Amino acid sequence: MNPPDKSVPEKTRETAALYFKGVTDERPYDLWRAFDKNLARDLSLFITGQMYAREKIPHTVRQLVTVAALTVLVRPEELKLHIQAALNVGCPPEDIAETIFQTAVYGGVPAVNTALKVLKAVLEEKGMWPPEPAEARP
Amino acid sequence: MNPPDKSVPEKTRETAALYFKGVTDERPYDLWRAFDKNLARDLSLFITGQMYAREKIPHTVRQLVTVAALTVLVRPEELKLHIQAALNVGCPPEDIAETIFQTAVYGGVPAVNTALKVLKAVLEEKGMWPPEPAEARP
Amino acid sequence: MNPPDKSVPEKTRETAALYFKGVTDERPYDLWRAFDKNLARDLSLFITGQMYAREKIPHTVRQLVTVAALTVLVRPEELKLHIQAALNVGCPPEDIAETIFQTAVYGGVPAVNTALKVLKAVLEEKGMWPPEPAEARP
Amino acid sequence: MNPPDKSVPEKTRETAALYFKGVTDERPYDLWRAFDKNLARDLSLFITGQMYAREKIPHTVRQLVTVAALTVLVRPEELKLHIQAALNVGCPPEDIAETIFQTAVYGGVPAVNTALKVLKAVLEEKGMWPPEPAEARP
Amino acid sequence: MNPPDKSVPEKTRETAALYFKGVTDERPYDLWRAFDKNLARDLSLFITGQMYAREKIPHTVRQLVTVAALTVLVRPEELKLHIQAALNVGCPPEDIAETIFQTAVYGGVPAVNTALKVLKAVLEEKGMWPPEPAEARP
Amino acid sequence: MNPPDKSVPEKTRETAALYFKGVTDERPYDLWRAFDKNLARDLSLFITGQMYAREKIPHTVRQLVTVAALTVLVRPEELKLHIQAALNVGCPPEDIAETIFQTAVYGGVPAVNTALKVLKAVLEEKGMWPPEPAEARP
Repeated sequence: MNPPDKSVPEKTRETAALYFKGVTDERPYDLWRAFDKNLARDLSLFITGQMYAREKIPHTVRQLVTVAALTVLVRPEELKLHIQAALNVGCPPEDIAETIFQTAVYGGVPAVNTALKVLKAVLEEKGMWPPEPAEARP
Repeated sequence: MNPPDKSVPEKTRETAALYFKGVTDERPYDLWRAFDKNLARDLSLFITGQMYAREKIPHTVRQLVTVAALTVLVRPEELKLHIQAALNVGCPPEDIAETIFQTAVYGGVPAVNTALKVLKAVLEEKGMWPPEPAEARP
Repeated sequence: MNPPDKSVPEKTRETAALYFKGVTDERPYDLWRAFDKNLARDLSLFITGQMYAREKIPHTVRQLVTVAALTVLVRPEELKLHIQAALNVGCPPEDIAETIFQTAVYGGVPAVNTALKVLKAVLEEKGMWPPEPAEARP
Repeated sequence: MNPPDKSVPEKTRETAALYFKGVTDERPYDLWRAFDKNLARDLSLFITGQMYAREKIPHTVRQLVTVAALTVLVRPEELKLHIQAALNVGCPPEDIAETIFQTAVYGGVPAVNTALKVLKAVLEEKGMWPPEPAEARP
Repeated sequence: MNPPDKSVPEKTRETAALYFKGVTDERPYDLWRAFDKNLARDLSLFITGQMYAREKIPHTVRQLVTVAALTVLVRPEELKLHIQAALNVGCPPEDIAETIFQTAVYGGVPAVNTALKVLKAVLEEKGMWPPEPAEARP
Repeated sequence: MNPPDKSVPEKTRETAALYFKGVTDERPYDLWRAFDKNLARDLSLFITGQMYAREKIPHTVRQLVTVAALTVLVRPEELKLHIQAALNVGCPPEDIAETIFQTAVYGGVPAVNTALKVLKAVLEEKGMWPPEPAEARP
């Protein structure tokens, strides 16, 4: 259950900080704000404060689910933001890769390839590439 | 790591049994087989034995990821199969609902509505509808 | 500018009444509510009270824009709701048809055919079919 | 090269007769015509007389290409029309099935399943189901 | 009703001049023409002369409808052409932005973000960025 | 019927050599391999050795069908690979262009434009642009 003692703006700030810490790409919020301040605030409070902040499923699962949706929809810019969010909430890179591969059966292989390139680019930016081979992990 | 001691056909049978136990809808395998037996076997071994059977992420996460992909792609027949699989591997209905809701931001609300109707229909078929209210759960 | 003197719940009620007067199809709100009352309220206030209620473009244009989006996305159930909303806010049937035809160049002809069938079905339900020929209109 | 001695309306009639002989489903042309006679004629002359009638690639290839596009777009009603057209211009059922299977890698397996169901239904309607096994063909 | 006294080529020229005045991006017509002159002419006469030139709904509404379709389909290059056309026929920038925002509910937020970036880039090219704040407009 | 005397790895190698001879773009196989060697091998054997290598329809038709699917799905990177494969197996450039144009009715004109740009770029890279005018061909 969502904690009743936190306001939506508080939850928005906390969830945004958790997900997008260290993200330097342009954030959709800034784009919305340039067009319409009120709508930008409404969108942000709704998406981050009322959707992402829900404590129904673990943040790691929420981000993998998001990665799957963005992979099959082929939305590489938004995917980049959420791969960073997935890493920030503790998803191991190989779980993100596995999530992307899993969608091949549903959304096709080219959508998977686009998503893997985004994942590889994020890992390179963060100095986490190449991934440690599975057999070397404990 | 995938267990080296099981053959792909064995893993295909075990994973199919785990996922689709009690499913009475027409299975894609039967449709493929009516057109081409060899290809049906190749497809089945690849999808079920080599993709689904991978033990990289828990089956519950794999199914939620699949639900997210099928929701935004609006594939209600395949979604029905995988909502049944999600329940079979132990996903609570409310986690499946939450996964579907979470995709609204990415794939739009009409895709969510279609998926929720499928989820509701599966739960009704199984006598699991209406869901027990969250506040009543321990 | 949105009137500052109305609350979001008020605007939600007024806009829902304007758009969906006389609509007897299942409303998405009821579906959401069956899964999660709080989220249903949040979604409804956001979509109807904060998006649809904005007085930036006339309601007729907002509904035609919505018809175009739902046509190319091929979402016939949601399209049916918004064709009814378009008629409720005063769009003539031929403007709705023209909007659908216009999308053929972008989303392809099969998507147009699906949308025209929905439009025809709505007009039949309302006793507005066949449309009065253009040459007979003043 | 398109024969210079035939008018677009002639080519439209001939191509429509070739493709859609014996098709009893509602034809898009009739739907368009109920909304706008002039536009229906313009659309029909353009699509059938200026696109389909082009003699650049064999009609069999044109129809398989169309089947592939409609499969990955998941447009089962239009697909049904063009599976009938494919059979009318001489495509063997197994070439249509192979074309559908081939798209699995690009558009995903659920789209293939939907298309195979349409193909099966058309073959059943025509008394051509089940397909003669390949090994029995000369 | 379309004026009977103008030929399709005349209407094509006039409508193209109205919509795409000052547009310096590569025009699809030139691309088509490089592959097939006759087909390029047929496509251009059909799309511009027979679809866009129809005087059923105002050009401003036709362009907003087009913007909505191209936003949810995520076709940024074609969208850029039609945002320029929308400005050419007199749509205020904020109506174009509002149209894009309105589609978020149907096609998802990432598609909106892509479209807003295109709109922002067009306005910057034309020296119309940042938009005058709404409260400063009469 | 697939030749019984060749193994899947042999067919994979032969088909890959036939399709992608001279292709210097990054191949999906290398991307998959960077994440997971075993899965990369499984995917490659399945897609190339079990799908592409099937001798049910001529390789030229298989590639045109693939071009149609990738055009309407708007997957320009994968399309580039398969336009090269289409040329490698003997499809004339104008058949590829015709296949792309044919999909306009189903997937819309912007998807066609994106695909034609990819085709033009491949032909330019190979010194095959501009295409010899049809009237000059024997």
